[in-house]
Amino acid sequence: MKLHTYFRSSAAYRVRIALNLKGLDYEAVPVHLVRGGGEHRQPAYLGLNPAGLVPALEDQGQVLTQSLAIVEYLEETHPQPALLPAAALDRARVRAIAQAIACDIHPVNNLRVLQYLTRELGASEEQKNAWYRHWIGVGLQAVEAMLAGDARTGAFCHGDTPGLADCCLVPQVFNARRFGCDLSAMPTVLRIADHCAGLEAFRRAAPEVQPDAE
Amino acid sequence: MKLHTYFRSSAAYRVRIALNLKGLDYEAVPVHLVRGGGEHRQPAYLGLNPAGLVPALEDQGQVLTQSLAIVEYLEETHPQPALLPAAALDRARVRAIAQAIACDIHPVNNLRVLQYLTRELGASEEQKNAWYRHWIGVGLQAVEAMLAGDARTGAFCHGDTPGLADCCLVPQVFNARRFGCDLSAMPTVLRIADHCAGLEAFRRAAPEVQPDAE
Repeated sequence: MKLHTYFRSSAAYRVRIALNLKGLDYEAVPVHLVRGGGEHRQPAYLGLNPAGLVPALEDQGQVLTQSLAIVEYLEETHPQPALLPAAALDRARVRAIAQAIACDIHPVNNLRVLQYLTRELGASEEQKNAWYRHWIGVGLQAVEAMLAGDARTGAFCHGDTPGLADCCLVPQVFNARRFGCDLSAMPTVLRIADHCAGLEAFRRAAPEVQPDAE
Repeated sequence: MKLHTYFRSSAAYRVRIALNLKGLDYEAVPVHLVRGGGEHRQPAYLGLNPAGLVPALEDQGQVLTQSLAIVEYLEETHPQPALLPAAALDRARVRAIAQAIACDIHPVNNLRVLQYLTRELGASEEQKNAWYRHWIGVGLQAVEAMLAGDARTGAFCHGDTPGLADCCLVPQVFNARRFGCDLSAMPTVLRIADHCAGLEAFRRAAPEVQPDAE
């Protein structure tokens, strides 16, 4: 498998964690999102993924896109260890936590959105950072409520084994810390993220140890 | 089943289509997103879904949130008619199309984001509408490329039966038209959306025929 990735992309980071949790080897192909206006906007990459976003996974001669779709694919093709629980209601809960991050927080703070804010709407650096922290605050607060208010939360987002929701939570907390967000009202989120950080699969997926890290 | 819904929410619209495609009866509970500052921000609804977003589905004594997680749940609990194909690579494709809409387009144009633009960043009505059209343009262009460039596209997004991707596409095209977006460069997207519009399951899910439509 070949993963088109950027060290700091949190969508790519999710897939790296999932691949590691499943013990799957892959070749990392770096796509630089900033240099030269972004390699993801150049024809070579757009031929692979017309959406021009990372990650993309090559497997069985096909190109797969969208981080959550990729993780579900890995789950179906390599079921063990499972990243989703067995019961439908529990699977729905884990997917909802993952999507509360992947749909409600991450896209609003994506690089291209921040660039639009400054270039098209003339937002200042301060306004851009306030935007970033606002959506992380609102979004992770909702995730905290989902986690803290449910007995199914364990050492990880769901029970005591890492799964899809943790694959999403850890990169989002990484971003939050990078931008200096106040996370003091989210003790469950932090407890789980810090617990994950102790695992090899999460450590090897971290931005700072990627081959393209700067 | 009880669906907490708002007639114009495109996330709720997706779930309404999926419920109809599967022939499942449900009770619609309207949550007004505008009146009185938004019923979704009031304690009664936040107790149900702390993220304060619609839709939420009540089933088996549990509250499920996040539209795609809800549709996957319906797929697992009521497998027929299937909204996802059988093969893992095909399932990944359908999920990727769905997420290209549900993650990359919709959240950036969500009501609360538009409100932040005008209230916090002082965006004009014109700038707000340009923002809206920009992200629909970029996002649906990517979806068009995913559809037009793949032989698996049929009368619907994947083959000749409606599925998860169509549940996402139709509400997004509805929004695009409502905001006067130029969709002339997206013939495949339009062809499929118009084909869906002929089906009873899609017609009954449309915003204008909901009990809370204005």
